[in-house]
Amino acid sequence: MKSYQEAVQFHGHSCPGLAMGYRMTNAALDHFSSERAEDEEMVAIVENDACGTDAVQFLSGCTFGKGNLIFKDYGKMVYTFYHRASGKAVRISRKASFRAKLSDMQISSEERINLILTAPEKDIVQIEEINMPEPEYSRIFDTILCEVCGESVVKSKTRILDGKNVCIPCFKK
Amino acid sequence: MKSYQEAVQFHGHSCPGLAMGYRMTNAALDHFSSERAEDEEMVAIVENDACGTDAVQFLSGCTFGKGNLIFKDYGKMVYTFYHRASGKAVRISRKASFRAKLSDMQISSEERINLILTAPEKDIVQIEEINMPEPEYSRIFDTILCEVCGESVVKSKTRILDGKNVCIPCFKK
Repeated sequence: MKSYQEAVQFHGHSCPGLAMGYRMTNAALDHFSSERAEDEEMVAIVENDACGTDAVQFLSGCTFGKGNLIFKDYGKMVYTFYHRASGKAVRISRKASFRAKLSDMQISSEERINLILTAPEKDIVQIEEINMPEPEYSRIFDTILCEVCGESVVKSKTRILDGKNVCIPCFKK
Repeated sequence: MKSYQEAVQFHGHSCPGLAMGYRMTNAALDHFSSERAEDEEMVAIVENDACGTDAVQFLSGCTFGKGNLIFKDYGKMVYTFYHRASGKAVRISRKASFRAKLSDMQISSEERINLILTAPEKDIVQIEEINMPEPEYSRIFDTILCEVCGESVVKSKTRILDGKNVCIPCFKK
């Protein structure tokens, strides 16, 4: 298991959001008794793009660059993990009671982080097994050269301009 | 400077895309004589979401969860870095000649990675200083409780349903 300090190094700083993401992601890994994904053994669907998602990336190996981090812009502190080997999925959220307790407390950010990191998991994390279809694997696409700038570009991302295949930045110009 | 092996640990495996992202991101950090961003000292605009972007995240500290990784879905191996302290930006791309040379070679993935990691920077990375407006800082939004599921949600992401503020997942149901 990666330490919170290692997650802080990746994120760049310590904050309550990262600490919460740390607890939530570890809850998912423990649930599946799973290691970090080397490839796409796990998929994370994150419902926000705030600090906690860096803990998701760092701990679970579901990263922006590997195609197994799916972003749904819902503004919710909810992460769903799909574990391909077992075909199971868990939806991880914050316990409403913990969120309410924390927001009532007049404490420093440091104390808040400490509380999040030390509270018993059952008091702060809500874990629900859910049914969902297996997410697709990420794909590798053909690339061509943009007929305006000459740079390589994924073919499916090109536009047609005066009969030429051009990349989106050239198309916009 | 972080090692390629450390970047591999974050990404989960070694591959040519990660190696190229490693060289490109280091070129940007060297250009600015910059450390990894602890907060939002740097912003990266990435024109794809493939393997190399994990090197961007890991090396530059421009991460998905910190609001300083901006994704433009153009399918191009291009990263632009904005350095707030100097107000300067660089557009980093692959040298076309190197890309062409690599694609002509009948070599293993391992050999390809090795070539990418050992080639002189000037042979593989194109660095252009560009002018661009400073990207905005990421913002923190007010949260409210969804009036259907009761979970907290960023207010600006809610929808109105029968006069109630509801989160997008509840709205879709």
